[in-house]
Amino acid sequence: MNMIKKIAITVALILSFASLNPVYAGEAAGKDKLVIQVSDGDAAKWNLALNNAKNVMNAYGADKVEVEIVTYGPGIGMLKMDSVIANRIDESKKSGVSIVACQNTMKNMKLTNDDMLPNTSYVPSGVVEIMKKQKEGYAYLRP
Amino acid sequence: MNMIKKIAITVALILSFASLNPVYAGEAAGKDKLVIQVSDGDAAKWNLALNNAKNVMNAYGADKVEVEIVTYGPGIGMLKMDSVIANRIDESKKSGVSIVACQNTMKNMKLTNDDMLPNTSYVPSGVVEIMKKQKEGYAYLRP
Amino acid sequence: MNMIKKIAITVALILSFASLNPVYAGEAAGKDKLVIQVSDGDAAKWNLALNNAKNVMNAYGADKVEVEIVTYGPGIGMLKMDSVIANRIDESKKSGVSIVACQNTMKNMKLTNDDMLPNTSYVPSGVVEIMKKQKEGYAYLRP
Repeated sequence: MNMIKKIAITVALILSFASLNPVYAGEAAGKDKLVIQVSDGDAAKWNLALNNAKNVMNAYGADKVEVEIVTYGPGIGMLKMDSVIANRIDESKKSGVSIVACQNTMKNMKLTNDDMLPNTSYVPSGVVEIMKKQKEGYAYLRP
Repeated sequence: MNMIKKIAITVALILSFASLNPVYAGEAAGKDKLVIQVSDGDAAKWNLALNNAKNVMNAYGADKVEVEIVTYGPGIGMLKMDSVIANRIDESKKSGVSIVACQNTMKNMKLTNDDMLPNTSYVPSGVVEIMKKQKEGYAYLRP
Repeated sequence: MNMIKKIAITVALILSFASLNPVYAGEAAGKDKLVIQVSDGDAAKWNLALNNAKNVMNAYGADKVEVEIVTYGPGIGMLKMDSVIANRIDESKKSGVSIVACQNTMKNMKLTNDDMLPNTSYVPSGVVEIMKKQKEGYAYLRP
């Protein structure tokens, strides 16, 4: 009987582990998430991206969804000190949206942190960030 | 022996459940699916979106794939009464493509259902629709 | 005892199978992968796509990531014999990036293989290729 109990416990443990393992849990688990790509040097697109983020936050409720805007290439201008939508960036971040700048792009464009809006967050590579987020189950949107 | 049978049956039941559970089944199961984003106010893009949908329907066969076109922002013009491609919209819907308009955008642009093509289908938010579809395993395409 | 061993072995076999099955393995397993869509007839976008691919290859290391660029619609020009970035295409392919042309587009534009750069790879439908890649766990990027 001892042997039977051992088998039963082992099976139970393996199955519990399987259901906890994130590989098994899949995208269906947890909060809905969205990564928004901003790669155009076009203020109309920047406003559209912020509007899209705002609509998602409103639709779900700020604590029930995660939204990240990734700026890279010509889109980096959205987060530069002279950005025409600097005030909207601030408002969006206060509402809970994460907005990040690509350091790869900054290096190519010879931009330093001093050229960027205060409190800007950075990622080493915008494209790799977008890949990672999709792998983590984020939906992708390119406004 | 009774105990051994009980363990065997329990294990079998748990494993069957795991394989039926949609969280485990993942995207690999079922029909291929595609959500196409139309957010530009550009008739060339609208035609491209309809062409892409048509090619996918032809490649798979209409009953073996699900294609949904989500129009929002300036893309909503594709489904307005005065849309320059109204006849193609009709043809695409008849072929089995689902095409929906974003009510969020309509409110912002002060559009009512009377401004839209007859038999237009609506979703509360185009962006949220695109997120949901990706979560359901739809591939994403922005023509 | 014979019976107990049989149960134990059966359970072990079923569980091993489950963990090997690609449906269970999900996107979290294996290499990171990226499919890049090129559908604009715009050389600036073509360069951006190649830059994005290069950055990803550099960030991961060429043998640790898979990157495929799918050209279709007006984007097919990127792979035509007269492409203004023909030399960069070659360099990108040598670095390990896969770049393919949509035969559907070629038929519509009355292009033959002779109109395309030497050693071009083809897929029957660019859009279906992009769908398939996403289903296989590729992240999507539209530069």
